[in-house]
Amino acid sequence: MIARVVIMPKRGVLDPQGKAICSSLHAMGYDEVDDVRMGKFLELRFVDGAAGEERVARVKSMCERLLANGVIEDFRFELVDDGSPGDGPRGPAR
Amino acid sequence: MIARVVIMPKRGVLDPQGKAICSSLHAMGYDEVDDVRMGKFLELRFVDGAAGEERVARVKSMCERLLANGVIEDFRFELVDDGSPGDGPRGPAR
Repeated sequence: MIARVVIMPKRGVLDPQGKAICSSLHAMGYDEVDDVRMGKFLELRFVDGAAGEERVARVKSMCERLLANGVIEDFRFELVDDGSPGDGPRGPAR
Repeated sequence: MIARVVIMPKRGVLDPQGKAICSSLHAMGYDEVDDVRMGKFLELRFVDGAAGEERVARVKSMCERLLANGVIEDFRFELVDDGSPGDGPRGPAR
């Protein structure tokens, strides 16, 4: 079981890395790109395959307390079975 | 039309940021986390809604030439209609 977490700068927050990449892409001839936003991608691997509301709540709490800066960043995540030991039998019915 | 690009350290490449986050999560009591890998997430917004093989090939080329470091990083991406002007009429049939 893994959680895939995406953390992006909020709308309206300056994103200098994204702007720099966009300029570089234009300089290389990729004029079809209008804008670039850059964020972070985290894969959290869990020791077991348990899913469900408690896991969702705990990942949300990890994002709010450590992974994302709520003032300038938004986050979203999904839980995915990746075939780790423990996935399946202890996971939710699907 | 946007491209969502995920760039992750290759398997076997040291990921000190991921390790640091994993240690912090443990120190905060999130012992269910076994491992953390940290990468980058990019959203490229296009000036039009055209999809198709050429766009896929050009995004792949952007990743290979600029966005990812092929020695230490893997990338994957998907093209998504996000309701920008130009999406739909000029996009592929679906």
